[in-house]
Amino acid sequence: MRKFLIAGAAALVSLSTLFPISAAAQFAKAEDAVKYRQSAFSLMGNHLGRLAAMAKGSVAFDAAAAQESARLVQTLSKLPWEGFVPGSDGGNAKLKADPWKEADEFAKLKTKMLGEADKLPEAAANLESLKKQVGATGSTCKGCHEKFRKL
Amino acid sequence: MRKFLIAGAAALVSLSTLFPISAAAQFAKAEDAVKYRQSAFSLMGNHLGRLAAMAKGSVAFDAAAAQESARLVQTLSKLPWEGFVPGSDGGNAKLKADPWKEADEFAKLKTKMLGEADKLPEAAANLESLKKQVGATGSTCKGCHEKFRKL
Repeated sequence: MRKFLIAGAAALVSLSTLFPISAAAQFAKAEDAVKYRQSAFSLMGNHLGRLAAMAKGSVAFDAAAAQESARLVQTLSKLPWEGFVPGSDGGNAKLKADPWKEADEFAKLKTKMLGEADKLPEAAANLESLKKQVGATGSTCKGCHEKFRKL
Repeated sequence: MRKFLIAGAAALVSLSTLFPISAAAQFAKAEDAVKYRQSAFSLMGNHLGRLAAMAKGSVAFDAAAAQESARLVQTLSKLPWEGFVPGSDGGNAKLKADPWKEADEFAKLKTKMLGEADKLPEAAANLESLKKQVGATGSTCKGCHEKFRKL
């Protein structure tokens, strides 16, 4: 038992090296917060891209694959916001407006996106509803990028 | 109706700019595949880090937050593998061994990790089982990093 506990403690110590995290917050450094939100947006973009490819007909519609991507977009859509910690506008951040100074506008665009992403999994059951909902969701991405994101 | 279709088509065209994707594969370029797998690993690492912080006692145990992070780790653990497309070993890739040449070893380590990540959500219900399972999952991350990943 003691041996197991020691092995467990050693595993946790080596985990701290692999996954550094502050005791006080979810992100040890501002750049970790930037990386977190960019990672979430990047995976979302990839899966919304797969749905867009089906919607456009450049990839054959596959309901199972569409619903999997749609569920991922829905799950991932909830993540990036935590990464917008005040002061995380340097380094790799590609902001062109200030989401903290314009918090109301930012929150409005976020809420729109979450609302549309929530409808994706059901819409992905058939191609016609998918087309509509991919367009609606993508428009909310675009709306926020136009205001807040350089690329 | 015609107006709606045109608006929908325009939304899809602008989506292609936001989310470039090849018609033939999930990734238009090797660097997109690298970014995809790194994004998935990065989010996984962040959430496993949150669980490790609770397991070590540096953050108070919160069953709801733990289960949410555990479910995210489980969901995300299934994603990165698709990003290991042959030839995606340049650019930002930080490989120190070749997962394609050593495919059996890579697959073995992947399967181990998936198996442990699958047990996390149930284990996150209480602190004692979380401690064990965070250690077990982290060891599978570490095992693969030691062999295949530079950092």
